[in-house]
Amino acid sequence: MEARRFTIALFFVFLLSKSYALSSRKDGARSPCKKLVFYFHDIIYNGKNSKNATSAIVGAPAWANKTILAGQNHFGDLVVFDDPITLDNNLHSTPVGRAQGIYLYDKKEIFTAWLGFSFVLNSTEHKGSINFAGADPLMNKTRDISVIGGTGDFFMARGVATLMTDAFEGEVYFRLRVDINLYECW
Amino acid sequence: MEARRFTIALFFVFLLSKSYALSSRKDGARSPCKKLVFYFHDIIYNGKNSKNATSAIVGAPAWANKTILAGQNHFGDLVVFDDPITLDNNLHSTPVGRAQGIYLYDKKEIFTAWLGFSFVLNSTEHKGSINFAGADPLMNKTRDISVIGGTGDFFMARGVATLMTDAFEGEVYFRLRVDINLYECW
Amino acid sequence: MEARRFTIALFFVFLLSKSYALSSRKDGARSPCKKLVFYFHDIIYNGKNSKNATSAIVGAPAWANKTILAGQNHFGDLVVFDDPITLDNNLHSTPVGRAQGIYLYDKKEIFTAWLGFSFVLNSTEHKGSINFAGADPLMNKTRDISVIGGTGDFFMARGVATLMTDAFEGEVYFRLRVDINLYECW
Repeated sequence: MEARRFTIALFFVFLLSKSYALSSRKDGARSPCKKLVFYFHDIIYNGKNSKNATSAIVGAPAWANKTILAGQNHFGDLVVFDDPITLDNNLHSTPVGRAQGIYLYDKKEIFTAWLGFSFVLNSTEHKGSINFAGADPLMNKTRDISVIGGTGDFFMARGVATLMTDAFEGEVYFRLRVDINLYECW
Repeated sequence: MEARRFTIALFFVFLLSKSYALSSRKDGARSPCKKLVFYFHDIIYNGKNSKNATSAIVGAPAWANKTILAGQNHFGDLVVFDDPITLDNNLHSTPVGRAQGIYLYDKKEIFTAWLGFSFVLNSTEHKGSINFAGADPLMNKTRDISVIGGTGDFFMARGVATLMTDAFEGEVYFRLRVDINLYECW
Repeated sequence: MEARRFTIALFFVFLLSKSYALSSRKDGARSPCKKLVFYFHDIIYNGKNSKNATSAIVGAPAWANKTILAGQNHFGDLVVFDDPITLDNNLHSTPVGRAQGIYLYDKKEIFTAWLGFSFVLNSTEHKGSINFAGADPLMNKTRDISVIGGTGDFFMARGVATLMTDAFEGEVYFRLRVDINLYECW
């Protein structure tokens, strides 16, 4: 009988450890399993800055063109980008990767955007990609988008990224701070 | 001995509650943890309706333009939208949010589309965003796309959304009913 | 007392089975719950091949047009596609579905792309859709993107897909091999 009780106790330990690891995902605290902060820098092509530009308008509505952001809060402008990612807010810091994908302005009455893009990180600290999608009501101080997947160091990651506009200069340059909180880590 | 048995019993209750909460995700019934139904309304810009239009063609193939949907089942037309979301099928009901993102027609032989967009909900009942992606073979009565993430009230949500075309009027207006079933809720 | 012990034993069996099924998701081996291999075939419209073309440039930067892929490694070209999926590397094999969505070239210095698309599978073996997003640094031998969701047979799927360029012919035709590894299966 004592042996059986010991076995039962062992099972308990096993079950508890498993259950705890898993249940941490759903219950209560919502504490991230990984936190990261990056900045990325977007210089949009305006007809004169082809050397420096990191992005370009590639889609625009019938009433607009591709060298000047459209009226009505740029509604309909679709931009492809390849923006440097840095660890601090200095455009000239050594990049740790590239933010690549699309953003598009999608409202006439106010600035809002929609983003589908990836962080492709390639530094001593991080190798892999983080994939994002979501709405960016960019006049808000902070905006949350979804981390929808990842590869490499970020294999199967899910989470939420909070965007903050860290600089906005004359419709040519903007810098976003991105606070990434992963809640699913593998 | 009785005390130990009581402790064991307590552990059981603990383990069972944890396991149940978690196992509901993968096993058997696939019953959603949250169900929502919305409608959204798309009025595409056609050169004459700039006041009412909620969407616009911003990309089109070489053989097409941006005020008339292209031939060959609109293949290649890419549309940016900012569509009102309502709780019923009435375009003039008070919106509870906006559907924002892109859709694109992607087949020559028949109408099909691909969608990447967000519901940005801002009502007394729901605050937050739901992010979607997927193929929309729109001649089918119902089509399933993925809920790939969420923020705010829909933090970390995943699920499936079923689209139904509720109205389609002269290639200017369409209304989709969206039945959202979330299977991961946090 | 024996009856109670039997009940306890039953609970154990129940808990173990549940816990095991779940814990396999996060711990250790990262072994996929489903593996699939497909090929898809892209023939881009170049002004002369409208019958055969499965894709078309629909967005391009200010300095480019929509019948010739842009200079600077096609930076800014956005392509809508409806490509046949086959089980082997033969363009003329019976398709098992279609790959539908967008890709875009997003770097001036080297070929890289970003992808948002779905596999819409309709064969005796598979019915349903798999949704993908991610960066495709296409000069690398293998590139990982995310499986961000699925429907039908791939309900709620998540995973990683590894892309390999299996053929690349004169900037008109390319063929990708896609090794899909799902790590969340429902």
